[in-house]
Amino acid sequence: MTAFPVPTMPAPPVGVVGLGQLGGSLAAALVAAGRDVTGWDVDPDARAAAAARGVRIGRELDGVVVLAVPLPAMGHALADLAVPPDATVTDLGSVKVPVLDQLRVTYGGRYVGGHPMCGTERSGHAATDPGLFTGARWAVCLEPDTELPRWLRVAEVALAAGAEVVPATAAEHDDAVAAVSHVPHLLAAALAAAAGEAGPLALALAAGSFRDGTRVIGSDPAFVSAMVEGNAGPTAAALARVQAQLARPWPELVAAGHAVRAGAPAGRREVRVPLERAALLALGRAGGAVTRRLAAFVEGHLPD
Amino acid sequence: MTAFPVPTMPAPPVGVVGLGQLGGSLAAALVAAGRDVTGWDVDPDARAAAAARGVRIGRELDGVVVLAVPLPAMGHALADLAVPPDATVTDLGSVKVPVLDQLRVTYGGRYVGGHPMCGTERSGHAATDPGLFTGARWAVCLEPDTELPRWLRVAEVALAAGAEVVPATAAEHDDAVAAVSHVPHLLAAALAAAAGEAGPLALALAAGSFRDGTRVIGSDPAFVSAMVEGNAGPTAAALARVQAQLARPWPELVAAGHAVRAGAPAGRREVRVPLERAALLALGRAGGAVTRRLAAFVEGHLPD
Repeated sequence: MTAFPVPTMPAPPVGVVGLGQLGGSLAAALVAAGRDVTGWDVDPDARAAAAARGVRIGRELDGVVVLAVPLPAMGHALADLAVPPDATVTDLGSVKVPVLDQLRVTYGGRYVGGHPMCGTERSGHAATDPGLFTGARWAVCLEPDTELPRWLRVAEVALAAGAEVVPATAAEHDDAVAAVSHVPHLLAAALAAAAGEAGPLALALAAGSFRDGTRVIGSDPAFVSAMVEGNAGPTAAALARVQAQLARPWPELVAAGHAVRAGAPAGRREVRVPLERAALLALGRAGGAVTRRLAAFVEGHLPD
Repeated sequence: MTAFPVPTMPAPPVGVVGLGQLGGSLAAALVAAGRDVTGWDVDPDARAAAAARGVRIGRELDGVVVLAVPLPAMGHALADLAVPPDATVTDLGSVKVPVLDQLRVTYGGRYVGGHPMCGTERSGHAATDPGLFTGARWAVCLEPDTELPRWLRVAEVALAAGAEVVPATAAEHDDAVAAVSHVPHLLAAALAAAAGEAGPLALALAAGSFRDGTRVIGSDPAFVSAMVEGNAGPTAAALARVQAQLARPWPELVAAGHAVRAGAPAGRREVRVPLERAALLALGRAGGAVTRRLAAFVEGHLPD
């Protein structure tokens, strides 16, 4: 990914605001990939940790500016920083429609939403890992009014960090992560809470299936609550789909769940997709991802 | 555990019927602990694999006879084998009330139910591992009419294999495993099936929380269906408790689930419990386990 060719223009500089686990890891990954990176964080310790990984520290950001801050801080993340009016702004937030609604007021078509599907239960700059994005899927949002060259600049940052880019609208993204991320957090919470009601004998007999099924609720509850409440509509809809599944006869339910879990595509097939909004979104809807940009195409893959 | 003292009588021989993952692992663990073990399996390959681990192969079983066969085979597992009328019979089945109802007809007070909380998604004799039980909890059932010396012989087999023994009634066991094992399988199935409905984009964005939350439904669906249907009443009740949790406001649900998951006891406190039915069951209900038998006591621990 580091040899990613950019035939039409030099790779723009990248500014990263927030140098915690995600932002710090991204800045370090881009430095390792030879990109020009400037980072900022209100916490001097986070700045020092990033500087130790070769990130230039400063308040003047340009090119692609990445907001790697918590959802409530998105709106004022650039308040004390110098960012030119033509910079492209993206973010790493776990929900996209609410951030789009908020940031398009300030940044208009310059905002391109993003969400890397990684991160761990750890957080903060001490959890920084330049390899965090390697092989991860990174949703980069493409709305009807998104300027395609700006979308490509954000996609190139994700590719340079080692990720694969999944094109999706913000609404499609939010529905998808409700199903595969936000609902799993609620199910883990309900499973753990109900086992707590069942009592100490049940917890003493808990083994692998309980550990796996509740692992994700070990995360910071304030973070989890903000995440599910920030995507309340799609999460409620996805939870209703899970509850409908739970009403099926058990052998039918077990067979259906096993088929999805065991039926992951065996391989992938390489594809070339023209640099057009509809073609990119169709790739994402089919479960594909962009792995490389060429002049007038992107290369990627589809499940096989 | 291998130096477990038996002050009052020599350790009885052990017969293991069924030499798949659980039975083969148990026979191998007991051979390694210096116990006298005879094994049998209808499959010649399973017999050969056990013999290669030092298990004597034969149809004449004595002492503690362990039924390590699937639930539907429990009733006739000893049909072609020679077992003396005073042997103690135990099993490794994942549900205990239905097995108790079935086997007490044939074996009366000689039957003591057991369930080691281990095993993996693999199965069969190729998945044999003498270390499978090390540190695992092993429920050994104590009914009002269970003869305590027989319960102790079964508990000693579990301890000799490296497990910790959790005393419980069959009904308490079935309620507990419904909450921590059977319901997690149903939730994993519903999560996977609903994500399948959400489509390829959702599955393409699935990361850690989805993988963890659905891992257990990668198991053989016939095995999972038999398990949940074999414990239908307690599983339905435990599932209703999960659904009641899901109806709570999300921040409350998340906080409650996190408290159980993160609130696992930091340590354990050593205890001595008299060899009495009520005291042993109280230890199990409090989340404790037996780790060693002395003359008139067992040693064990409680959550601290």
